[in-house]
Amino acid sequence: MVRQDFIPQVPYGTKDILPADAARKRRVENELARLFLAWGYQEVVTPTFEYYETLKAGAPDEAEDSAFRFFDRSGRMLALRPDMTTPIARVAVMRLKEQPLPLRIFYLANVFRQEESQAGRQCEFYQAGVELLGADGAAADAEVVAVAVESLLAAGLTDFQVCLGQVDFIGGIMAEAALEPVLAHKVKRALLERNLVGLGELLEHAGIDKSVRELLQQLPLLHGKMDLLQNVRSRVKNKISQAALDNLAEIYRLLEQYGMDRYVTFDLGIIRDFDYYTGMVFETYTSGLGYPICGGGRYDRMAGAFGREQPATGFALGIERVLLALERQGLDTAGKKSGNYVGWAEKKLPEAIAKVKQLRIAGEIAELALQPKDRAATEEDAVLRGWSRCYYID
Amino acid sequence: MVRQDFIPQVPYGTKDILPADAARKRRVENELARLFLAWGYQEVVTPTFEYYETLKAGAPDEAEDSAFRFFDRSGRMLALRPDMTTPIARVAVMRLKEQPLPLRIFYLANVFRQEESQAGRQCEFYQAGVELLGADGAAADAEVVAVAVESLLAAGLTDFQVCLGQVDFIGGIMAEAALEPVLAHKVKRALLERNLVGLGELLEHAGIDKSVRELLQQLPLLHGKMDLLQNVRSRVKNKISQAALDNLAEIYRLLEQYGMDRYVTFDLGIIRDFDYYTGMVFETYTSGLGYPICGGGRYDRMAGAFGREQPATGFALGIERVLLALERQGLDTAGKKSGNYVGWAEKKLPEAIAKVKQLRIAGEIAELALQPKDRAATEEDAVLRGWSRCYYID
Repeated sequence: MVRQDFIPQVPYGTKDILPADAARKRRVENELARLFLAWGYQEVVTPTFEYYETLKAGAPDEAEDSAFRFFDRSGRMLALRPDMTTPIARVAVMRLKEQPLPLRIFYLANVFRQEESQAGRQCEFYQAGVELLGADGAAADAEVVAVAVESLLAAGLTDFQVCLGQVDFIGGIMAEAALEPVLAHKVKRALLERNLVGLGELLEHAGIDKSVRELLQQLPLLHGKMDLLQNVRSRVKNKISQAALDNLAEIYRLLEQYGMDRYVTFDLGIIRDFDYYTGMVFETYTSGLGYPICGGGRYDRMAGAFGREQPATGFALGIERVLLALERQGLDTAGKKSGNYVGWAEKKLPEAIAKVKQLRIAGEIAELALQPKDRAATEEDAVLRGWSRCYYID
Repeated sequence: MVRQDFIPQVPYGTKDILPADAARKRRVENELARLFLAWGYQEVVTPTFEYYETLKAGAPDEAEDSAFRFFDRSGRMLALRPDMTTPIARVAVMRLKEQPLPLRIFYLANVFRQEESQAGRQCEFYQAGVELLGADGAAADAEVVAVAVESLLAAGLTDFQVCLGQVDFIGGIMAEAALEPVLAHKVKRALLERNLVGLGELLEHAGIDKSVRELLQQLPLLHGKMDLLQNVRSRVKNKISQAALDNLAEIYRLLEQYGMDRYVTFDLGIIRDFDYYTGMVFETYTSGLGYPICGGGRYDRMAGAFGREQPATGFALGIERVLLALERQGLDTAGKKSGNYVGWAEKKLPEAIAKVKQLRIAGEIAELALQPKDRAATEEDAVLRGWSRCYYID
């Protein structure tokens, strides 16, 4: 029975990934898995949904604002994971606590965010990422940035910039400014949105020390290499911001050892949209895409929510964003479908089956016709179906 | 802050897949993807949740009984997909209708079922499967069974049996028996549960023709090779069941051509737990596992729900079930972790970074220590962390 009354759609913010894109996705994911393994990371797969309280323990605002929630049969609240950092932190504490630290975990997973405004944002998207747990210090942060750079290279991108910041740098200046909480929140929001005009207006009559105010106002503009750090170092007086700058310099020097400094710029105005970051943070941009393809940082306090305090750093990369960047930059390597089509004359199906078997044993792709046709029709089908070679068995 | 009041758990029926199992899962899934591609199937990825009405259009009972349901911000009901057959049928009609038929689609995906009884059943599990759309006839069905057999071989299993049935065979006998609907439903349930005693009791006083009754009662016992088909052929009088037997014989002869007949047995009592099947159905069993690792069949009427009637056949395989069977049968090939651990003395991190870079460029796995230690401690760490080789840079 063909129903005419019902037009099937996919839910808002979700999509079907059709064969050409699914093949590209699989190829990139396999490259990334290989890379993560080469760096000593091990894969973990977690449930698609968690108890809501688990997600809230890891990233309260995120869970509250954007998790799809529902109930199990006993009435407990479940939620689709809005990111992988909380589930991995949970696994590390709950299931891998006997393992020697540091723990290197990677994942390839889909995450879900219910968007407030229906402004064309995805509600389900695919991420690859690593978490390096139980290690503080610049060596761990530099490794995570280096894996991020290698990931984008492995995916096929060449033109991208890692923008490196430190939440303590901003935190130190904010503490120095001693803004009252409501204003401090507004200032953070303006920084997150890189809203220079709004930032200026907020701070103009805040009654704070001129040098601190100028530094805050200029935050979104503090981009540069090592000379920027030195320049800014001379302008900050508080110890927290100074230590943050020293930390960034140390990470940068290690990235020089990795041969990756050319991909890295400081951007001292970076505020990530998760509250859990406690140190180095970064975002990676590529041409033709107005949002980061990858981001991460240090989050030393999350594991405490699951019963064991431990430092941690990591990043996640958006698979769809990488694929889109590759496409926009003309770096798509998806070639013509290469393989064989095998058609057959009446009663020749057994021989055609023998032919496809032989081709597949030889490592070839072979599609078998399911009805007898003549040679011309078979050749037409092979072209129509996109195969590079055609066999006709008669 | 370390919280002590809150012990994180995963939701009922879900699990974390830890590194050793995640690696086995990835290996098997990659083998399957390669195999499906070799047979000319193309991957499709669909959203994890669909509009509830979409799932209900494809498989009403399944959606109603076991889909996790929730709401989007506009109040429309969503549900986690309980199987992939409905979403793939939707994609085929909605997004791939311009493609030449038959359409060969594969997927590797997780599906979700809310279980009525909390009897240790999984609520989230991983499947691999193919759907062959727009093709009727035994050649299509035989291909799908052949892909199923090749899948299990590719995964590493050797000892398994495909049990092949035909829903029309039972349908024809049921029609002949002309049972009233409530009794017919009970009989189907008894067949599904292979409850011979219950079946006997139900039919004893049903007042149906003796030969028909005996055939119905013996359904769960009708196992065998081609001689079984010939034997049963002589006992059925209705044309529907006869045509079903002819169809099975034709499929079997093609499986002989594929060289796979030794994996195939007829089991005329098979009733699958989805209502959408319309022809050949099969289930595959392996030793040490009390439930099928793989199953499927023909479902010619589903696509009509999405606006285009087209024949279809396919199967799905349970990834966790295959992994469990491999483990129970001692066929697990997961070897010792092979790779390098690189430790370093104070101030030698740059040289250690150079060493891991060199190893990785040579295609090796290399994990870098993140703190300086002496040689003995480094060698201890390498063993503790499971690596096969250790380098110390001083």
